[in-house]
Amino acid sequence: MLFASMSLEDDLGDWRRSHYSSELHGMDGREVTLMGYVASIRDHGNILFVMLADKDGEVQIVFKRNAEGSDGATTQALFSKARMLKEHSSIAVKGIVRSMKNAPKGVEVVPKEMKILSLARSVPPFSVYSKNIPLDVRLDIRAVDLRRHYLRAVFRIRHNLLKAIRSFLDERGFIEVSTPKMISTASEGGAALFPIFYFDREAFLAQSPQLYKEQLTLAFEKVYEIAPIFRAEPSRTNRHLAEAISIDVEHAFVNYEDVMGILEEMISHAIGYVVDKCKDEFSILGTTPIKPSTPFPRYRYSQLIDILKGEGIRIEWGDDFAAEHLKALSSMLKGYYFIVDWPARMRPFYTKTKDDGSTALSESFDLMHGDLEISSGSTRINRKDELMERLKMQGLKPESFAHHLIVFDYGMPPHAGFGLGLERLLMTVTGLENIRDATFYPRDIDRLVP
Amino acid sequence: MLFASMSLEDDLGDWRRSHYSSELHGMDGREVTLMGYVASIRDHGNILFVMLADKDGEVQIVFKRNAEGSDGATTQALFSKARMLKEHSSIAVKGIVRSMKNAPKGVEVVPKEMKILSLARSVPPFSVYSKNIPLDVRLDIRAVDLRRHYLRAVFRIRHNLLKAIRSFLDERGFIEVSTPKMISTASEGGAALFPIFYFDREAFLAQSPQLYKEQLTLAFEKVYEIAPIFRAEPSRTNRHLAEAISIDVEHAFVNYEDVMGILEEMISHAIGYVVDKCKDEFSILGTTPIKPSTPFPRYRYSQLIDILKGEGIRIEWGDDFAAEHLKALSSMLKGYYFIVDWPARMRPFYTKTKDDGSTALSESFDLMHGDLEISSGSTRINRKDELMERLKMQGLKPESFAHHLIVFDYGMPPHAGFGLGLERLLMTVTGLENIRDATFYPRDIDRLVP
Repeated sequence: MLFASMSLEDDLGDWRRSHYSSELHGMDGREVTLMGYVASIRDHGNILFVMLADKDGEVQIVFKRNAEGSDGATTQALFSKARMLKEHSSIAVKGIVRSMKNAPKGVEVVPKEMKILSLARSVPPFSVYSKNIPLDVRLDIRAVDLRRHYLRAVFRIRHNLLKAIRSFLDERGFIEVSTPKMISTASEGGAALFPIFYFDREAFLAQSPQLYKEQLTLAFEKVYEIAPIFRAEPSRTNRHLAEAISIDVEHAFVNYEDVMGILEEMISHAIGYVVDKCKDEFSILGTTPIKPSTPFPRYRYSQLIDILKGEGIRIEWGDDFAAEHLKALSSMLKGYYFIVDWPARMRPFYTKTKDDGSTALSESFDLMHGDLEISSGSTRINRKDELMERLKMQGLKPESFAHHLIVFDYGMPPHAGFGLGLERLLMTVTGLENIRDATFYPRDIDRLVP
Repeated sequence: MLFASMSLEDDLGDWRRSHYSSELHGMDGREVTLMGYVASIRDHGNILFVMLADKDGEVQIVFKRNAEGSDGATTQALFSKARMLKEHSSIAVKGIVRSMKNAPKGVEVVPKEMKILSLARSVPPFSVYSKNIPLDVRLDIRAVDLRRHYLRAVFRIRHNLLKAIRSFLDERGFIEVSTPKMISTASEGGAALFPIFYFDREAFLAQSPQLYKEQLTLAFEKVYEIAPIFRAEPSRTNRHLAEAISIDVEHAFVNYEDVMGILEEMISHAIGYVVDKCKDEFSILGTTPIKPSTPFPRYRYSQLIDILKGEGIRIEWGDDFAAEHLKALSSMLKGYYFIVDWPARMRPFYTKTKDDGSTALSESFDLMHGDLEISSGSTRINRKDELMERLKMQGLKPESFAHHLIVFDYGMPPHAGFGLGLERLLMTVTGLENIRDATFYPRDIDRLVP
């Protein structure tokens, strides 16, 4: 059997793709070489319609048992070969483009030669055209799952979101940085860390580039990093991952209001870009976002506490918003909005308190979309004594942060910044309900493979 | 003392930068607000020259004890304040632009008001203008070290290299992906891995996105990732890091010759871009690369073994090139060149052997610059039985790769790709001799901080 199956498959040899499926309009009568995989097969006895899917779309290949006027022998061999195809097999086809009103894209290809580059031996429990399939049946064969047009559209939108965000930051003079993911100390109290064996020492995976990006404002003023972050979240929600991509921005000589302005402009720009660029993708998703206008509404933390209380919902000043509070808020507050001026003790140690004398509040914000937090940020403390004070207040040891604190002896500028979760942003743009589908290979407490 | 030092410092308040130092030409007589840090101070008794450095360069601020025709009292207070400045302090200055032939940039600023945003309390053991300082005295205060004009130039070049590479790949239809850094199995035999506690299980940090990027060609055909890789290298050389940034490219329906073509064009394009874009930076480095012409020379592994033997150097077919061999080769082979067609058993298990019947050789390459390997790649095996065979031959267990092997049942296309080390590429472009300076915060067997 092994020998038999091997003999069915062809090597690529000197064949190369001449066109993508999206490039065939107006090419009537031209010979092309296409490559891709078999998305579907319709067998009508003497005629076989094969949808070849490539990076850019699909095109119909028509195999006839006895094509008129062509070389009968070749045609017969080709037809028999096509009969062996299964969905997902990778193929290369040389053939002639022909317009055909009834074909799905108004064009089809009449094959002259075909290579079977890789014959599928298994059939996934879903079609590439299906939309709503439970996660469990998909994640074990995630690479195949990603062939579904729905997910391919999601990740093409992701690609373009990233492109728009980088070009936005680049045009504003931000420099791209990379900070270490293997670190000696937690950058924030609270969040759970993954421990590593670092040669003969204990180390941790960085749950954020926070302290490093702050340090880098010293030399570069405006920095950004788009890189993985790691959180040993024991939760099993639809909005948490153990490994995610964070878009981190830090900016010297400004405060939280300035970076809120950058964040909202960046998001509005990026959504405008993908709405314009990814029309086909949004049509596959069946939903298109509206480019949000700026500024986004801002609500003070205290104000929202009062509103919730006014609605008879149980919450006290100083409490974090729990799921039910956020649900209640999101029934009133649509789209993107900021919650600003959080109680200082609810925020990480590096968060600056407000200058108005009331040190109970901080210059901080969360960016929300409905009930989903997608970003948080603040003005940071840039004075060493103040930072040490706050470390102690939060029960952290200044000694553990010696390598960070020393930087504050060298003229640390005032600065502010934010971290934005790429997967969560992508959820708001695509309407995905489970964050696991906003990443290629999700990691959570239950899943370390594939 | 604490109180006294705090009272010297001002809050940012509503001051915002109006211009960068690079934007002052032709602005004679205009009032500007500048922000940055004090790069140097020259004290002439009644006159103080302060170089203010910002993201884009430097400008001279001239403080006079008794400026003619201005408000004497204010001037006196301002002068006293300027006297307290130390190098590296962060300041904001409101003042009037004045052309001045003798000033370093042909322009200087006469201050009207100044805020000391952060007073430096320590002095680094190097100036921001110095070039050759031993690493040990720098890395403990790396954030300050990065203020040196030399390193700032390096990292601005890095920023632009990345930008050029992404736009090159984007224009060719590659999609950006992110693969998990926490993995259950080594993706290659050999390279040393960092173990992690993943909740209640053992896991590892990915030493390469290899298997994931291969899988992703199934759905996306042309993918790239620019992300950290982790190698528990016990070596202390000038060209190894425990954490580095890898530029990974994978491409369906092509072979190693095709991706060598993409790699050389990408590098040539990126160098051309930075040579054009970073003239000031290369002038600070004192060296400018030449945009390499393509194609890069290709030498077969066997051919180089023969050449070395011909020179009387001891090496046998099947040996890897050691440092002394690479030194000898680099004395003959200048610039970028490929070493191709390596013995199959010297390459990772997923490397395809050559089609010419001699399975001893593989469709593989290293890209070299002098004696430095900066990239390696190959045609990959896309048949499951062949891949299992090679796993066993290399002493690896197919069971450990079950989640990867299953993908090959669904029509895995022929594919090829490469990984390119960003820091090593940056070394070849900037002339850096130690890879630690090609990354922001180096990680090696001895260093986990800052």
